[in-house]
Amino acid sequence: MNFNFRNYLEANLEFINHSLIESIEKLSIPSTLKASMLYSIKAGGKRIRPILMIASVEAFGGKKEDVLPAAIALELVHTYSLIHDDLPAMDDDNLRRGQPTNHIEFGEATAILAGDSLLTLAFQVISEAENLTAEQKVTIIKRLSMASGPTGMVAGQILDLEAEERQVNLSELEQIHRLKTGELLIFAVEIGAYLAGAAQEQLKAIREFGHHIGLIFQIQDDILDIEGDEQKLGKAVGSDQENKKSTYPKLLGIEGALQAKAANIKQAEASLNQAQIANSTLHAFIDYISNRES
Amino acid sequence: MNFNFRNYLEANLEFINHSLIESIEKLSIPSTLKASMLYSIKAGGKRIRPILMIASVEAFGGKKEDVLPAAIALELVHTYSLIHDDLPAMDDDNLRRGQPTNHIEFGEATAILAGDSLLTLAFQVISEAENLTAEQKVTIIKRLSMASGPTGMVAGQILDLEAEERQVNLSELEQIHRLKTGELLIFAVEIGAYLAGAAQEQLKAIREFGHHIGLIFQIQDDILDIEGDEQKLGKAVGSDQENKKSTYPKLLGIEGALQAKAANIKQAEASLNQAQIANSTLHAFIDYISNRES
Repeated sequence: MNFNFRNYLEANLEFINHSLIESIEKLSIPSTLKASMLYSIKAGGKRIRPILMIASVEAFGGKKEDVLPAAIALELVHTYSLIHDDLPAMDDDNLRRGQPTNHIEFGEATAILAGDSLLTLAFQVISEAENLTAEQKVTIIKRLSMASGPTGMVAGQILDLEAEERQVNLSELEQIHRLKTGELLIFAVEIGAYLAGAAQEQLKAIREFGHHIGLIFQIQDDILDIEGDEQKLGKAVGSDQENKKSTYPKLLGIEGALQAKAANIKQAEASLNQAQIANSTLHAFIDYISNRES
Repeated sequence: MNFNFRNYLEANLEFINHSLIESIEKLSIPSTLKASMLYSIKAGGKRIRPILMIASVEAFGGKKEDVLPAAIALELVHTYSLIHDDLPAMDDDNLRRGQPTNHIEFGEATAILAGDSLLTLAFQVISEAENLTAEQKVTIIKRLSMASGPTGMVAGQILDLEAEERQVNLSELEQIHRLKTGELLIFAVEIGAYLAGAAQEQLKAIREFGHHIGLIFQIQDDILDIEGDEQKLGKAVGSDQENKKSTYPKLLGIEGALQAKAANIKQAEASLNQAQIANSTLHAFIDYISNRES
């Protein structure tokens, strides 16, 4: 990874974390609930989604301060989804990023309520943003709810659960990931472009970019579950096979999965060209996401 | 109950149900998820919250069509809270309104995701409303998230769980109910008044009304758990005592609970006077809620 890009990620991680944690710290709420929300928020995410949003707004000539409320809301939604996904009734995971999952630490009831709280807070944060017009807030809320709710991420989660124990084909697998992971990544880059005033054509192209970035992300996730380093990942590998999950390597073999990743990388690059921001920081994310080790 | 008021409730129940069900039916989403969401939405609620909102907007001279998106959103949020509340990790209820609870019918994973979906959809419905300005949407979303999230209903739920197995005093009990039940009832009457263009003083008074209506609702709930008819309630009575819940009758005795209800009825009436809508349909809700049998 390019040294400057590493600095870019670290600086923006700081920028996001400060406001993200503050958005919860400042609430007057029951202490257990606050502790549970903060626990998962502070659990060391890389903040890829909000930083993608920042890179997008900057690529189109906007300022990162403009996307801050939407970026925080996005990470709140992402974190809620992890807490609920880890629950015993869902993926039943005990570890995430090397730490006990929320329900292991706080109990199931509190974990469910912490997830509910983070989701609800996301919409509150956007509604209270000081540097957005009412129209902008409504657009962001509409897109976030569509990307994360029953037409988006949650649809992906239920299809993913239903796909366990049965063989899905490649187009079904892409649909699941488009919904489960892709929609929030598309939201990230789209809202950055939108708040920078990008043209309609550029918005369309940047959505395509988000879609391919999502698939690259997922293919790499599947590969890491086979070839990854448990230490770096902070979780056990091999769980996909254990859970009989459909994955790219399972459907295509490792070689085929790598080819699919390469094809999506080409398409992501083409989308950036189309959006006329081929030389922006967004380009570095392609390499970063496709080669990530955790 | 006055015959005209019964008609009023029935007509508005129809009005709400139609749009409420349509808001889910029209979604292109996985069939299991849709079935699970519709199951709880159609489970026969009395729609007290949305009808209170309609009565409020009409009391202040507005039209019921104006509050429809906010009323639907409110009922979506209420329904999500019931699904999550019934989960094994929470209240572990198998029956609601005489029917199996959502997780009994669809399994825990789907029930969690159906709840998440209804919550998210609530914000989407407001953001997509055709008859509201962007400013109105933002105000409604802000108030709904505050009333239902970690500073509102969810805070009440966690305090309620924490209050099991220990003795709480009357002021703690009121705080729990204010958050768990009251905030959404306050939201109902406040948004009705807001969208009808009520004055600041009237908004303050109507919020007071919502607060007292909430306490009346809860005291009656506690009384019904002791003296209610299981057939009419659609659930077993005596569960509060079984779960060692703190209730009004437990803290004050049945006589004391009835006195507290009477005091709140007086205060609710005074709030309507204050809001200058003493003769509106809202007045009938005081009697309706304090004498309800289910």
